[in-house]
Amino acid sequence: MEFTLAQIAHILNGELKGNGQVKVNRVGKIEEGGEGAITFLSNPKYEPFIYKTTASAVIVSKGFKPKGEISAGLILVDDPYLSFTALLEEYHKLVSFQKSGVEQPCFFADTATEGKNTYRGAFSYVGKNVRLGDNVKIYPNTYIGDDVTIGNNTIIYAGVKIYSRTKIGNYCTIHSGAVIGSDGFGFAPQADGSYKTIPQVGNVVLEDHVSIGANTTIDCATFDSTIIREGVKLDNLVQIGHNVEIGKHTVIASQTGISGSSKVGEYSMIGGQVGLAGHIQLGARTKIAAQSGINKSIKEEGKILFGSPAFDHLQYMKSAMLFKRLPELNQKIRELEEKIINLTSLKTDDEH
Amino acid sequence: MEFTLAQIAHILNGELKGNGQVKVNRVGKIEEGGEGAITFLSNPKYEPFIYKTTASAVIVSKGFKPKGEISAGLILVDDPYLSFTALLEEYHKLVSFQKSGVEQPCFFADTATEGKNTYRGAFSYVGKNVRLGDNVKIYPNTYIGDDVTIGNNTIIYAGVKIYSRTKIGNYCTIHSGAVIGSDGFGFAPQADGSYKTIPQVGNVVLEDHVSIGANTTIDCATFDSTIIREGVKLDNLVQIGHNVEIGKHTVIASQTGISGSSKVGEYSMIGGQVGLAGHIQLGARTKIAAQSGINKSIKEEGKILFGSPAFDHLQYMKSAMLFKRLPELNQKIRELEEKIINLTSLKTDDEH
Amino acid sequence: MEFTLAQIAHILNGELKGNGQVKVNRVGKIEEGGEGAITFLSNPKYEPFIYKTTASAVIVSKGFKPKGEISAGLILVDDPYLSFTALLEEYHKLVSFQKSGVEQPCFFADTATEGKNTYRGAFSYVGKNVRLGDNVKIYPNTYIGDDVTIGNNTIIYAGVKIYSRTKIGNYCTIHSGAVIGSDGFGFAPQADGSYKTIPQVGNVVLEDHVSIGANTTIDCATFDSTIIREGVKLDNLVQIGHNVEIGKHTVIASQTGISGSSKVGEYSMIGGQVGLAGHIQLGARTKIAAQSGINKSIKEEGKILFGSPAFDHLQYMKSAMLFKRLPELNQKIRELEEKIINLTSLKTDDEH
Repeated sequence: MEFTLAQIAHILNGELKGNGQVKVNRVGKIEEGGEGAITFLSNPKYEPFIYKTTASAVIVSKGFKPKGEISAGLILVDDPYLSFTALLEEYHKLVSFQKSGVEQPCFFADTATEGKNTYRGAFSYVGKNVRLGDNVKIYPNTYIGDDVTIGNNTIIYAGVKIYSRTKIGNYCTIHSGAVIGSDGFGFAPQADGSYKTIPQVGNVVLEDHVSIGANTTIDCATFDSTIIREGVKLDNLVQIGHNVEIGKHTVIASQTGISGSSKVGEYSMIGGQVGLAGHIQLGARTKIAAQSGINKSIKEEGKILFGSPAFDHLQYMKSAMLFKRLPELNQKIRELEEKIINLTSLKTDDEH
Repeated sequence: MEFTLAQIAHILNGELKGNGQVKVNRVGKIEEGGEGAITFLSNPKYEPFIYKTTASAVIVSKGFKPKGEISAGLILVDDPYLSFTALLEEYHKLVSFQKSGVEQPCFFADTATEGKNTYRGAFSYVGKNVRLGDNVKIYPNTYIGDDVTIGNNTIIYAGVKIYSRTKIGNYCTIHSGAVIGSDGFGFAPQADGSYKTIPQVGNVVLEDHVSIGANTTIDCATFDSTIIREGVKLDNLVQIGHNVEIGKHTVIASQTGISGSSKVGEYSMIGGQVGLAGHIQLGARTKIAAQSGINKSIKEEGKILFGSPAFDHLQYMKSAMLFKRLPELNQKIRELEEKIINLTSLKTDDEH
Repeated sequence: MEFTLAQIAHILNGELKGNGQVKVNRVGKIEEGGEGAITFLSNPKYEPFIYKTTASAVIVSKGFKPKGEISAGLILVDDPYLSFTALLEEYHKLVSFQKSGVEQPCFFADTATEGKNTYRGAFSYVGKNVRLGDNVKIYPNTYIGDDVTIGNNTIIYAGVKIYSRTKIGNYCTIHSGAVIGSDGFGFAPQADGSYKTIPQVGNVVLEDHVSIGANTTIDCATFDSTIIREGVKLDNLVQIGHNVEIGKHTVIASQTGISGSSKVGEYSMIGGQVGLAGHIQLGARTKIAAQSGINKSIKEEGKILFGSPAFDHLQYMKSAMLFKRLPELNQKIRELEEKIINLTSLKTDDEH
């Protein structure tokens, strides 16, 4: 895909300095550049690169005053970083939504319906009463169970498995191998130590602009809904238990697990390999360091947590530093013990 | 699916108080209820809800004496919790075993055989010499390699991959994306630092009533069998290494990994994100807290373990509490050092 | 598959003692053996087994002098362990490369090409401009996106998903459910707390002799390539972030995660459930204990790391031992405090 600088200046509502007919076909880093690349300058420490870059175009601030020759075309905007990310998103959509039509063989139940301009790849399976919106792209080898609804402009990559009754919003992206709506881990213990399966009759709801990573698993609720709110981004191999609710615009890194019935506040950031116990609640804007374990509710907003079990991250870092120094502390205690024995015996000597 | 209260009283061998023609079509919580829901009362602290519930029926103990008006029909049984879970399991089976027949296209090798009332979804693959029992349900996009046997009443959800020679029992459930029987992680180090692959010629055996979570992986044995005993429940994204044996009725939560050749005792409970080293053995009824790491055998029965490396959970909680207080302990040590310097100098002063 | 001892002696360039017409059809342990099994004796402590083994053949050192009767045929070589692993690898290839031909239905784009003696299973999908080498084996229900290249003698097991533009070398093995080339976790934060998706336009490169475990995920690079070097072995459920580079002949155990842009040195060994932060570098021959967390670069070669955050493993083990003894250290501090109070009061008493 190619765009002229004139087109891009128009899309970004920016001012063009240079040849509007020059074409760009990819995004790149200012320090790498290359013909056909468009990049941006936001952080002043990267300014030296703009005089050397071989990129075809750079998005810069309207206030930018060059201190030397620049070979690239310039697009002047209010906020180069925001404009660049807007451009990225446009590009992302164009690339992602190229596919359309139906590849055979694929399976589409009689009672399923779909909107305009969809793509359904070979060996994709669409069950009974499924509703697919406009522009939905379903890659090959994907399974969509009965009674699922999928909003407009949502992309389901190859080999995704979506269980019955799941509801997916608009502008969602689900990466390969993700499993949405599998049974929650519910087993009722019996007197003899065995377990009976508790049927999981709820579902999963993904609101709009949700992104789900590869091989991530989201369990359906026991009765009602496991809910992933608007704008949430889950990385690969994340586990979301039954009846969990993830607040809007929260980001969760790879291999983290959220146990059943827990709630994570909006705008939170959770690192990789974190574990949350079941039935706990975290406030909005919570940040959790990688590999932490959270075993109780912390409802205050904006807490930064670290450790397993986790507590305040600054406190944790102090404790972790002293953990490393434990042999030294142990040695000090031993020395103190000896000194006190000496002092005590001196004392006793005095008393003779 | 709908049942009359008379039918349910009959199934549970219970006594009905109320209109036997009332219909229920789902299970629910006593505090939520709703027309058509059936629930139960076991824990006395929930008794107040029985006078307010809008559920159509409640399973109660034969000894229950109402202290007010109840609008729901009552089914009196010996143990309401057990009866409710039995009902759940019946319901679960009914819901899960609805599908039957063959959806085209699917692949079924000439030498494969199957029992009565099976379901084989579109794009499912059944290899050479596979034996499928009665009532086996194979959802779409599933792969079953050569020489696999699957017992009666087992459900394989969409996109499961089962390698050759795996043996699966009766009444098992395998959720989407699970991989059963992939090669164990066996590589023989060579003098130049590279590795040669050790062929894994064993298999995986799942006994009866085993449940496997979404995207869980179970490696085949190097020579003989990786064994998952009767009634074991594995959550999502669990890793079971080659030659592992999991004792019967053991439950393992999400994202836990059991390394090669380890054995877990029966009736154990293992939390999420736990790691077991290879070649270790744990006794029956072991409990392990989430995120723990077990690096040696603990063969006594009934131990409760916590930490990484793990030890007794009560001891661990004391140490974890003191870890948090390390800055304070460090401060105390410093103060002691100063005091002793003072005492020593006083002492020395005395001696002058 | 069966071989005579004469054939095996020939393959291993060894000397045969016994009947060259005896047939073997599997590898086994010397202590188990059984008719048709071939095994080896390398470690002297296993020597007693050679006089009892029921195996049909044993690979031994040229210098081996029997101290008793041996019923098995012997194959004398320079290094029994190396010869045995070479045999294993041959056997592995024979078993793995048995399949060939095309099962219908499968999808093969007009512009895709393939070499000789390939296997393409039912419901496999091969996208536009894909290049498959000789002897490539693609199992059922596998997805290979547009513009992918796969070298000779590479096996892709059932249900693997390979995104567009991925490059895979010769003699690679990719196990079921692995996802190669999914989007890196890149989102640009916006002023309102939401995120825009950063398009990931790079790819993944697997060099030769790479092995990828079941349900492992490898993200594509943002611009250039995520690189898995020659001979790397990744276990199941491993996560490799965007722009990561794993040095040659490195082994990574199950459920470990390597965050974006990090580099792991060659010949390293990383345990299970380890986490690496983003943008860090580790030297060659680094060893990391299971469940460790690495949050900074350690470029020296040959370090052995343990803990989260990790440091030198011997130091860590000392700290971990003292962590367990923290209640005891705390008690000692309390006793010291009391003794000093006593000493100080005695002192004060003296002064009166």
